[in-house]
Amino acid sequence: MSVPSSPVHRFASDNNAGVHPAVMDALAACNHGHATAYGDDPWTATAERDFDELFDRDVATLMVWNGTGANVLALGTLLSPAGAVVCTDCAHINVDETGAPERLLGSKLIDVPAHEGKLTPEQVLALRHNLGVVHHVQPSVLSITQSTEWGTLYSPSEISALCDAAHELGMRVHLDGARIANATAALGGTREALRSFTIDAGVDIVSFGGTKNGMMYGEAVVFLDPDLARTAGYTRKQFTQLPSKVRYISAQFSALLADDLWIANARHANEMARRLHALVADHRAFTVGAPPAVNSLFPAFSPDVPADSIESLRDWSFFYDWDAHHRQVRWMTAWDTTAQDLETFRSGLDHFLG
Amino acid sequence: MSVPSSPVHRFASDNNAGVHPAVMDALAACNHGHATAYGDDPWTATAERDFDELFDRDVATLMVWNGTGANVLALGTLLSPAGAVVCTDCAHINVDETGAPERLLGSKLIDVPAHEGKLTPEQVLALRHNLGVVHHVQPSVLSITQSTEWGTLYSPSEISALCDAAHELGMRVHLDGARIANATAALGGTREALRSFTIDAGVDIVSFGGTKNGMMYGEAVVFLDPDLARTAGYTRKQFTQLPSKVRYISAQFSALLADDLWIANARHANEMARRLHALVADHRAFTVGAPPAVNSLFPAFSPDVPADSIESLRDWSFFYDWDAHHRQVRWMTAWDTTAQDLETFRSGLDHFLG
Amino acid sequence: MSVPSSPVHRFASDNNAGVHPAVMDALAACNHGHATAYGDDPWTATAERDFDELFDRDVATLMVWNGTGANVLALGTLLSPAGAVVCTDCAHINVDETGAPERLLGSKLIDVPAHEGKLTPEQVLALRHNLGVVHHVQPSVLSITQSTEWGTLYSPSEISALCDAAHELGMRVHLDGARIANATAALGGTREALRSFTIDAGVDIVSFGGTKNGMMYGEAVVFLDPDLARTAGYTRKQFTQLPSKVRYISAQFSALLADDLWIANARHANEMARRLHALVADHRAFTVGAPPAVNSLFPAFSPDVPADSIESLRDWSFFYDWDAHHRQVRWMTAWDTTAQDLETFRSGLDHFLG
Amino acid sequence: MSVPSSPVHRFASDNNAGVHPAVMDALAACNHGHATAYGDDPWTATAERDFDELFDRDVATLMVWNGTGANVLALGTLLSPAGAVVCTDCAHINVDETGAPERLLGSKLIDVPAHEGKLTPEQVLALRHNLGVVHHVQPSVLSITQSTEWGTLYSPSEISALCDAAHELGMRVHLDGARIANATAALGGTREALRSFTIDAGVDIVSFGGTKNGMMYGEAVVFLDPDLARTAGYTRKQFTQLPSKVRYISAQFSALLADDLWIANARHANEMARRLHALVADHRAFTVGAPPAVNSLFPAFSPDVPADSIESLRDWSFFYDWDAHHRQVRWMTAWDTTAQDLETFRSGLDHFLG
Repeated sequence: MSVPSSPVHRFASDNNAGVHPAVMDALAACNHGHATAYGDDPWTATAERDFDELFDRDVATLMVWNGTGANVLALGTLLSPAGAVVCTDCAHINVDETGAPERLLGSKLIDVPAHEGKLTPEQVLALRHNLGVVHHVQPSVLSITQSTEWGTLYSPSEISALCDAAHELGMRVHLDGARIANATAALGGTREALRSFTIDAGVDIVSFGGTKNGMMYGEAVVFLDPDLARTAGYTRKQFTQLPSKVRYISAQFSALLADDLWIANARHANEMARRLHALVADHRAFTVGAPPAVNSLFPAFSPDVPADSIESLRDWSFFYDWDAHHRQVRWMTAWDTTAQDLETFRSGLDHFLG
Repeated sequence: MSVPSSPVHRFASDNNAGVHPAVMDALAACNHGHATAYGDDPWTATAERDFDELFDRDVATLMVWNGTGANVLALGTLLSPAGAVVCTDCAHINVDETGAPERLLGSKLIDVPAHEGKLTPEQVLALRHNLGVVHHVQPSVLSITQSTEWGTLYSPSEISALCDAAHELGMRVHLDGARIANATAALGGTREALRSFTIDAGVDIVSFGGTKNGMMYGEAVVFLDPDLARTAGYTRKQFTQLPSKVRYISAQFSALLADDLWIANARHANEMARRLHALVADHRAFTVGAPPAVNSLFPAFSPDVPADSIESLRDWSFFYDWDAHHRQVRWMTAWDTTAQDLETFRSGLDHFLG
Repeated sequence: MSVPSSPVHRFASDNNAGVHPAVMDALAACNHGHATAYGDDPWTATAERDFDELFDRDVATLMVWNGTGANVLALGTLLSPAGAVVCTDCAHINVDETGAPERLLGSKLIDVPAHEGKLTPEQVLALRHNLGVVHHVQPSVLSITQSTEWGTLYSPSEISALCDAAHELGMRVHLDGARIANATAALGGTREALRSFTIDAGVDIVSFGGTKNGMMYGEAVVFLDPDLARTAGYTRKQFTQLPSKVRYISAQFSALLADDLWIANARHANEMARRLHALVADHRAFTVGAPPAVNSLFPAFSPDVPADSIESLRDWSFFYDWDAHHRQVRWMTAWDTTAQDLETFRSGLDHFLG
Repeated sequence: MSVPSSPVHRFASDNNAGVHPAVMDALAACNHGHATAYGDDPWTATAERDFDELFDRDVATLMVWNGTGANVLALGTLLSPAGAVVCTDCAHINVDETGAPERLLGSKLIDVPAHEGKLTPEQVLALRHNLGVVHHVQPSVLSITQSTEWGTLYSPSEISALCDAAHELGMRVHLDGARIANATAALGGTREALRSFTIDAGVDIVSFGGTKNGMMYGEAVVFLDPDLARTAGYTRKQFTQLPSKVRYISAQFSALLADDLWIANARHANEMARRLHALVADHRAFTVGAPPAVNSLFPAFSPDVPADSIESLRDWSFFYDWDAHHRQVRWMTAWDTTAQDLETFRSGLDHFLG
């Protein structure tokens, strides 16, 4: 049997995807004449209004380069002196940002073991014994990820309960929304859904992702309480996260927010993951669990599948290990995944894994 | 007399300019299919080779978001423990990056008073008395800017002498090349010219600017001695400067380096500044000094010009103060400045300043 | 029954103890005339030689103020760029230094769950998967505590195996010896014993404790490979840990090292803990486990002991909670604990707990 | 002529001096039994009350190890996000702390050229142009030294005017009082004098020196507005500046504050400096300027004095260079300088310099 062609849009990560045509159009459309650098331009003013409308409130929105930058800016804004960030042990800020929070903020991350990427209010409240003890860092910010690194979701009421617990200890709450669109799509697919698990639940600052959802680059830090942004303009620059030609990020966001293209993109990615699951769940080479909540699958290969076969599959269409110890990998869909990609991938599975 | 229309391309800063058409084309051209994130993609491999050819040596090139990020990554690579960065008092890293180097690197900047933005070897060697004294930070990195913040140029032999002085004290050398293209254009306009004041002169790492010269975003940190880059991949991520979709920066750089478009763009900007100087040097409302070496003019308004008139001019076509105490401002040209813009601006000067 | 008097030397911590008479004498003896500040004095030269003799090698010894300072200086010396410190989850550096390592070093601590305060080589080697991945901090320093925070001991061969594992991953090893004297006393009570689990085992830098063992203040950072100390003089000052009148720390250490008073002090404290254990092990109000290896007991109160009774006992003779969730506390002896203190404490236990 | 014996108490620095007998007595007196570590002991409670009385107000006082630690804790408390410290170019924090403020605080020091170590309100107000500009660090704390590194004094009204200027820009004020006793002695020698240039003048936090004035070690950070100390307990520990056996610092301070021994010690040092000046002012080998305000002289050697002669003098009785370029050195008296030391030193000058 001859080797099939690789999928055009593979399943490594949604950040391997390209840029949505509407975003490309927006970039071209704003590319004329001069615009004041650092955000004092009409495209940025428009995008800021777009975010106000999105959250139905006067929020403060700062455009930044990337997710790590967004997270560091948000956390740095919320931390008190000698304060610590509380997060899951699998949080992106804890394991996938090369220690950027510790380096830029000088703060400890208290990483709590989490089931499928989700914290509970009890785990937060259990940190109470540190309060007031000068030898311990003081829990100061709770950072949660929605949708989580494990492709799971907090319900709005779960986030609300977490915020209550955090506030009870005098903490503030950050939501890492690198895939906030996928969560929104999965939780109803409306702006009301977004608000239900952010501003209505008691979250203080959101890292609002764009790059994984069809943008070329750029994330937004949304201060749901705009007073919190008082000094954030300075720290954004200090953390190297102030773009000069901001218009090109702002225009992308406006394109994504228009007609809720951001939700449509994510809904498509989620749907593709569900279809991929349906297409491969019966495969005898791996187990893949329940249908995905958002856009990622975490198949675990059977012990009898030769390592060479997995590597051949990976060479053909790249994907990442998730938990090498358990032979678990991650397959992820994106806004541009097609039905054809799914079929092709299934063919590859059959070809390489038998 | 009616108010003329503002110039289409104003004179505030080259970072107010848009994106060059060839760069836009390159962005569109690389926007198909998936590409591995974080730099393991064919466009980045190509751009890295382009930089090797540019410096005629195997260098190590890391793409980053912006100039502040490039500078911090370069300085952080070169600093020794308890080391300090030596720079001019008007260096961008010293006055225009909101203390990013101190915050991210934890290092002191020793800022030396400089005439028109240029340091001398004697000023470097005068720091020798700090060496070996545990109470003093140890001068560890010399950072110079080419072309300087004052629009002046070091000759290749001046940079060579500075590098010699730095090396004599055991220091390494960083060159902030936010406008390295303008310097290259002014010093001969060839790749040999670039090499003469960088790799041949003894510079260790270059922040190679793209954004001010026709790109949408992105700078390159070029480690002229690739051994220096051994751990830079980790610190790039730690400093929030690792883009996920690197291909879109790499493709821009390749477009700029192809057929030396980067030099052509800068040559044009320099030429526009010289023509602007010729067009306005006789104006009685300000003095503007000698013709510019690169793409900026620093006119100083006469005491008898009413402040209101200057503000009206600024409202009409924005520009920045340079030294408010001496009524000095900065006018800057860019790759997209046109002859029409120059004429329009001269009309505006006559209209608002009489 | 009337309340007995509290013990003169209570069981809260060895850092609640006073200063040994020989140390007080040494402080008085060096208090004449002027001495050059910052370490260039004869008492410091003597103490440095004393440490060379202690380790039977030319080591480099830097006096510092306290244990947190010693640890931060040691770790900072060993860390590579974007490097992380690996330690137990109950390490002093992880839970009792208010995040000083993260704040001063900007580095993540990878805290590994540990049984009774001890790591295994397998736990170290399990971190191998991070090596070379730019998104992960790079395990760079292994920090172990001897004797541990749980009052347990590593054998010399266990430490040797940990060092081998660390070196296999390219890491260096720090030993937090806040109670290194208690460990030495317990493992043979000779200088050879000390060397067997430090310099002979492959440890790179030791935080050598003085304050908990009869000194007024002061710890020593001993660089077993003196080349490692090349820049430590600068960072000691930068981390605020350079005393001006160093002679008063050096003289204390020389007094403690003379005739191995440091071992004798610790042997006494260990012996007092064993006798306390023997005296209270049969008490029905708590369980206290096996006889202690060094100078601390961790009794766990029975569920039926009223909380008020414990607080009355604590008011009478203060001690700290260890694990409030399990009603576990810590009782600790010191160089100055007397047989009378033991008897008195047992009387108090009977009085308050019945 | 035979070489005279060196002075018993030389003129290198007041931190070369020993410990005052009353301080030694206090150390012995508090050395009995156990005391709770980290400051919850009766000696510390007493010392805190002593400071309340000293400033005639309920202040918050935290004992720390040394001056650099005191300064960093004070500055860190007052800094706002992206804030900078404003100080003189010769400030101890700027040139003699190996960049500790930058490293521990991540903040820029804006060092202003100062005449004889003193800033003016105009120099502070000139920084106004930075306010609100996101590219510039925000002037946040003014740090002044009293008495200054140049042995000069601010009058109470000068400090009051500086505080007014700082407050006008929204800044807070720190006073580095490493030699605050010498200043107090020189400005009247009463507690009212101390208050006139600190709490009454508008200073927010004082680094109150002990080590240079007869203590073995220890400084106090006095938060004149105790609300400012709210989180300082945590950051003291985080910056490695929390001693465990605090009683030994507190007892020293109480001994020094009793009967204003701190002022008497400083008055003596100042008087010795004036007498040294009188004794040497006519020497033809150097010029030494006006009589000293506090306890330091800054003689500048004549060009015709051979360098070898100066080094022979220095070998005989050590002192530091101050400004090598101008052959200027520093001679400093201390609480223990005697009339005999002065005579001996004059003999040495005659012997070595002719």
